[in-house]
Amino acid sequence: MKRIAFQGELGAYSELATYEFFGRDVTVVPRTSFADVFDAVTNGDADHGIIPIENSLAGSIHENYDLLLERNLVITGEIKLRIIHNLIVNAGTRLQDIKRVYSHPQALSQCKDFLQAMSGIEQISVNDTAASARKIKDKGLKDEAAIASGQAAVDYGLEILKTGIESNHKNFTRFLILSKELMEKVENSKTSIVYASKNIPGALFKSLSVFALRDIDLYKIESRPIPGSPWEYLFYLDFNGDIRDEVCQLAINHLKEIASILKVLGSYKKGDEVISKIQGRNE
Amino acid sequence: MKRIAFQGELGAYSELATYEFFGRDVTVVPRTSFADVFDAVTNGDADHGIIPIENSLAGSIHENYDLLLERNLVITGEIKLRIIHNLIVNAGTRLQDIKRVYSHPQALSQCKDFLQAMSGIEQISVNDTAASARKIKDKGLKDEAAIASGQAAVDYGLEILKTGIESNHKNFTRFLILSKELMEKVENSKTSIVYASKNIPGALFKSLSVFALRDIDLYKIESRPIPGSPWEYLFYLDFNGDIRDEVCQLAINHLKEIASILKVLGSYKKGDEVISKIQGRNE
Repeated sequence: MKRIAFQGELGAYSELATYEFFGRDVTVVPRTSFADVFDAVTNGDADHGIIPIENSLAGSIHENYDLLLERNLVITGEIKLRIIHNLIVNAGTRLQDIKRVYSHPQALSQCKDFLQAMSGIEQISVNDTAASARKIKDKGLKDEAAIASGQAAVDYGLEILKTGIESNHKNFTRFLILSKELMEKVENSKTSIVYASKNIPGALFKSLSVFALRDIDLYKIESRPIPGSPWEYLFYLDFNGDIRDEVCQLAINHLKEIASILKVLGSYKKGDEVISKIQGRNE
Repeated sequence: MKRIAFQGELGAYSELATYEFFGRDVTVVPRTSFADVFDAVTNGDADHGIIPIENSLAGSIHENYDLLLERNLVITGEIKLRIIHNLIVNAGTRLQDIKRVYSHPQALSQCKDFLQAMSGIEQISVNDTAASARKIKDKGLKDEAAIASGQAAVDYGLEILKTGIESNHKNFTRFLILSKELMEKVENSKTSIVYASKNIPGALFKSLSVFALRDIDLYKIESRPIPGSPWEYLFYLDFNGDIRDEVCQLAINHLKEIASILKVLGSYKKGDEVISKIQGRNE
């Protein structure tokens, strides 16, 4: 059975993303930090890792961009998971009983319309959404709720009282799959690279021209500072195609003429937008 | 006397940046959040605001990028402040007496070489560097220290035992000055804009071409998600020149052909790199 490392504890959205990508027939390997996830794959404690790289509302997770450059793993897949927030309770708790709601501050903020409608409820911040579900379970009270993934309800034997309580349903987190080696070439793939340009006029424009001149579509550009070189930047670029395609090879060779640093992070099948099928009572 | 709003309490690096930009002859208006700084200028509680926009080691402060788009203030200046971390103590404290050091986790991490050399010292995280200095002052103990700006030592009547204890001295934070209206045109200026491209092939490349074709240098590009439009992005761009220059006007008019959103955030004199002259004992 494949072992998949993720950051967080059981019930984290990363655990749900793991099952949605790999299916349920895997062993999950929870780790404390994102760096620990990279380590687990490098050391062989896990076959693959899964990390969030951007959320469609909050933006990029820069720590993981930095780790992709520092560590020597490759990206071999992606999945875009709909972030569905659920109101999770001990069995038998009714909506009108709830006096306190625990969750991560970002999840509380993303459910503010729902929480405002439940007037007089105390909101309590905890470090992560999964921990809020575990807390509800441990305390066993019937006047408290957590906001977490459907997977957290499954993991801790709790009930989903309401599902989809987030204000903006266009809330997706894109996760990347990390492996030691590139997979075989597939159809409908994209490639991620990181590079820094030489100090030449119009460097950013010229670096993008190597793709535009070959009609290679770009999906995302992200800039990060180069430590020790103030006001110089690394660019993380996602573009259409596989690094083993001839046109991509030509573009990369062209980019090498103007780049001082260049690293290919991986080629992988473009991920679908996925909605978990875990359902609640929705009373 | 001009009133300048900044986020944080007295002794914050933002307060130091205020004095380095405007001189000491100003009234500082401390505010709790970045949004409060924007509000203070909008409401007339302050004449200008000052906000950090990027650190050369940690990267951009995205909350402020988002606020620049949402609110209707303009950027009228910038300053690049060397972040010098100081070991700050109550008068008479010697280096060998120190048992505990308080600071923001990022400051503790940026001084890790210095702290490791002081073996056996307990490191305690607090919410911000200025608060760590205030805590030292309030407790009045001679076996504790804070890591904070030189300005914090001045504000709380403390001593700087060591200055420049950060591991990487190429640590700068770039601050922006916020105002209600554009200043008069000056020499050596740059312009900041934010835009989103229409959904056309090669949109990012085409948007940068409007500057490249006119030999307008770009300084920085930063992307942010568009809430409610997953996998679409806003681009924040800094380029050379004043928005009132003819060549910049032509570029902006060209950009309008391919942009669905476009907002000019301001034109302002390029900021210098500045090192505070507040000195310590450096025993």
